[in-house]
Amino acid sequence: MAFEIPIRVYIEDTDAGGIVFYANYLKFFERSRTDFLRSAGIAQSATMQDNLIFVVRHAAIEYRQPARLDDMLSISSAVTRMTPTRVYFVHEAIRQSDRALLVRAEVEVVSVRLDTLKPMAMSQALRSQLQHTIETRNV
Amino acid sequence: MAFEIPIRVYIEDTDAGGIVFYANYLKFFERSRTDFLRSAGIAQSATMQDNLIFVVRHAAIEYRQPARLDDMLSISSAVTRMTPTRVYFVHEAIRQSDRALLVRAEVEVVSVRLDTLKPMAMSQALRSQLQHTIETRNV
Amino acid sequence: MAFEIPIRVYIEDTDAGGIVFYANYLKFFERSRTDFLRSAGIAQSATMQDNLIFVVRHAAIEYRQPARLDDMLSISSAVTRMTPTRVYFVHEAIRQSDRALLVRAEVEVVSVRLDTLKPMAMSQALRSQLQHTIETRNV
Amino acid sequence: MAFEIPIRVYIEDTDAGGIVFYANYLKFFERSRTDFLRSAGIAQSATMQDNLIFVVRHAAIEYRQPARLDDMLSISSAVTRMTPTRVYFVHEAIRQSDRALLVRAEVEVVSVRLDTLKPMAMSQALRSQLQHTIETRNV
Repeated sequence: MAFEIPIRVYIEDTDAGGIVFYANYLKFFERSRTDFLRSAGIAQSATMQDNLIFVVRHAAIEYRQPARLDDMLSISSAVTRMTPTRVYFVHEAIRQSDRALLVRAEVEVVSVRLDTLKPMAMSQALRSQLQHTIETRNV
Repeated sequence: MAFEIPIRVYIEDTDAGGIVFYANYLKFFERSRTDFLRSAGIAQSATMQDNLIFVVRHAAIEYRQPARLDDMLSISSAVTRMTPTRVYFVHEAIRQSDRALLVRAEVEVVSVRLDTLKPMAMSQALRSQLQHTIETRNV
Repeated sequence: MAFEIPIRVYIEDTDAGGIVFYANYLKFFERSRTDFLRSAGIAQSATMQDNLIFVVRHAAIEYRQPARLDDMLSISSAVTRMTPTRVYFVHEAIRQSDRALLVRAEVEVVSVRLDTLKPMAMSQALRSQLQHTIETRNV
Repeated sequence: MAFEIPIRVYIEDTDAGGIVFYANYLKFFERSRTDFLRSAGIAQSATMQDNLIFVVRHAAIEYRQPARLDDMLSISSAVTRMTPTRVYFVHEAIRQSDRALLVRAEVEVVSVRLDTLKPMAMSQALRSQLQHTIETRNV
């Protein structure tokens, strides 16, 4: 099962169309991804001290249905595959009331040096932690 | 005791100074205020259907210390006084690790008609619900 | 030649990594797309009064290089093809100092009824205006 | 005369109430303040290299009328007074079509060391540049 966090839709998330402004789903997915990494023992403020940050290299987002003010969403994160410098995530935004899939995204993240922003291989410890989340997901 | 919600600082909240971008505290306070109103039985998506929304008329914000990535904050909301069309809130952003007060704001909210944005008195039911939060706060 | 607008990077656009937060490029592209549509005679506040809004159905974004505080960017918009209810845009974020391509996106927009958010064919006038931008682009 | 920049209201700036989300005016004022400082010869990316950044210590914002999608605004910045470590700004958001004053803010900014965020006096050169803007404003 994928990692999930609940997110409430606030007025800050909406636009004049009365729905969630589409760029904001990238924020929702980032929050879920950050909490997912933290739950796997990876805090970004800590990796930054090791001169490593994750940056998004590619994102593909499919918007199926809009979310509205006060909606409760479940935002999921799962690692689908990885290389020494890249991690591939799938995220979904699901409306809790009827479990409708509203938005789905594939996000490719690269580990880079904080000072130069050049790709840098993750430590073996980091890779093992992420690999573990792939394996336990399929159980 | 004031109403409080926990808010985690994500990368979206920070700026190139490495701290939370100061405008974002207004979002944090809005989330807390919205949840506070909901806990008092007042959902904004419902009041909108009654043609009433709350808009901010004045905000004064004092920034004492910065918050940083991954910090856990407690964001409080309390009503200090009210009139038939206005509600006065005090909000605080407190760092959970040491209970340091980071940011404090006074926010004046006006109830207006959704269609014209002209001030409109709140219903007696709404005012009673808010008045109740003032009284129980001082117990 | 594609339609372009200049965008300065402000502190609000950056994150703790010292670079533009990646979700914000969707805002930059939206600003360019909006101005592009306006230059083609299509104001969104006007189409809203005709009960039509454009919503993003799909976005694919490739991040090549980061932008930084104070950078001047050129954000381009071009229509690549269209159907009665859909318009396909390509956007680029280019750093003005060296014309480096930083970010590139393909965005699929659907015309929907404002009240139901169901797809609604654009008027013939609207389609002619957009078609014209495709043809003059290749001159 | 105060320094002014034009700002168009885009969909990203609005909320489900159909008006500009009130926290976003702090972004508009920041853009104007940044351009004002740049016009006075002070680029924030440059002062950062001298280990100095400006942080907001206090902001008081009065919201008089809402702005809407596609509105053209003029956002002004003026220094009203200063100390070796503090600069006091007044900002206004004016609707261009009728010159109506929509939002007015007083913002107190402190110069701090980038590494410690402790107050640090501005250089004499910086202070002279700012002082000059106060004097020429009253001509």
